[in-house]
Amino acid sequence: MSSSNTDNVQTPTAAVLIIGNEILSGRTQDVNLNAIAIKLAEIGVRLSEARVVPDIQEEIVNAVNTLRQRYTYVLTTGGIGPTHDDITADSIGAAFGLAVAENPAARDRLLRSYGAENLTPARLRMARTPVGAELIDNPVSAAPGFCVENVYVMAGVPNIMRAMLDNVVAGLKHGPKIHSVSVSGFVAESLVAAALEDIARRYGMLDIGSYPWVRSARHGTALVSRGTDQDALRKASAEILALMQQFDAQASINEASFPL
Amino acid sequence: MSSSNTDNVQTPTAAVLIIGNEILSGRTQDVNLNAIAIKLAEIGVRLSEARVVPDIQEEIVNAVNTLRQRYTYVLTTGGIGPTHDDITADSIGAAFGLAVAENPAARDRLLRSYGAENLTPARLRMARTPVGAELIDNPVSAAPGFCVENVYVMAGVPNIMRAMLDNVVAGLKHGPKIHSVSVSGFVAESLVAAALEDIARRYGMLDIGSYPWVRSARHGTALVSRGTDQDALRKASAEILALMQQFDAQASINEASFPL
Repeated sequence: MSSSNTDNVQTPTAAVLIIGNEILSGRTQDVNLNAIAIKLAEIGVRLSEARVVPDIQEEIVNAVNTLRQRYTYVLTTGGIGPTHDDITADSIGAAFGLAVAENPAARDRLLRSYGAENLTPARLRMARTPVGAELIDNPVSAAPGFCVENVYVMAGVPNIMRAMLDNVVAGLKHGPKIHSVSVSGFVAESLVAAALEDIARRYGMLDIGSYPWVRSARHGTALVSRGTDQDALRKASAEILALMQQFDAQASINEASFPL
Repeated sequence: MSSSNTDNVQTPTAAVLIIGNEILSGRTQDVNLNAIAIKLAEIGVRLSEARVVPDIQEEIVNAVNTLRQRYTYVLTTGGIGPTHDDITADSIGAAFGLAVAENPAARDRLLRSYGAENLTPARLRMARTPVGAELIDNPVSAAPGFCVENVYVMAGVPNIMRAMLDNVVAGLKHGPKIHSVSVSGFVAESLVAAALEDIARRYGMLDIGSYPWVRSARHGTALVSRGTDQDALRKASAEILALMQQFDAQASINEASFPL
């Protein structure tokens, strides 16, 4: 696929909404945002914003209603378990002005998984969705996520979230894959800043970022170019490699990230 | 300090704003939010929201102006390096309607660190702040962060961010420390959901959360109570421990988190 073709395809946008006191209290290191970001880039959806909100309905409603109007998709994580602090289903219902009730299809899934004797009222809470929501398969632990319009509601437990995410992304419209090329070397970023700014200006269709690092007490920089235009990526990366090699002859392209 | 005294002290609130394409592209797993969350809880500041925005001035300005009006403090990470994608200083200036210029004190710090012969124009970019900003010490690599009113601007590189954060929190007003007690055992959370909801209702001054986990293919749950009222925490945790031990005699309190 040529770059001129891929450039004609519009890239959908997305926001991630992480719901959970445990992230804001510091108890839990979130890993879901990174997993979602990688997956969306792979399929050609641009992740444009993320928010973390506490388990407070008004906060969830406000964030959902802002984000679902701004972006093609909103993906939420957290708050769909069986306990009192799991208020995501009610909050999504409130955001859309929809009643929340036991979803017969979700109840069937829980019934098959737990059996009638173990389908307690607490577990049945996990069958509640806004009326009319579509279910998202949960191959790990049965209790499904759900989707209302452009908002996809997933679990917070990382392995369950990732399994749901695979099912979610299969149904999203998407643009061309967003490729990424990294050039890295033992070069202080300030040494290449001026020349890099010139390259970034000439390749305006790419996002070019500079990320310093330290290894064995030596300073280095990774210059990362991202975009859907493979031809531009190839040319910009060659220029960036030549620039970095002026200061470190061993500077190299991470070819694994992109077939140059 | 008795709980009735600590309850009279109002707990300030904070938001974290993570600035950087690399988080949204999936290139980088953020670890700064968790470090900030832990530190703020330790000193008695309630982290109420977090956002991740790309390196786009309008997005940064809108987020800063929303968050600084809602919360006592805003802490930002990222975008204060020497390259073209480091636009945080200009964005904070725009948010406050302040000009951005070379800060003489910041220039002095860079001069001492790099020496006159190595203080290139790119490095000097790191001395630019909104006019009137106060500097935040950077003991790792000299280039300072800065503060305008209630907005604290820190680096994105984690070890530099943490060093700056230690200097920031020393100057924040704060309430009583927010304590956390975790009770954990091999108990499915749905088994304790109803009783836990009752406990949570009776201890409304605490945040009580339920977090399922899997270890060696066995399911368990951590029930976490948080708050400033040590007496309530002690009583609620004892009730939660008794509840969990009905299902797992080995269920235990993480006493390291709180002196019971």
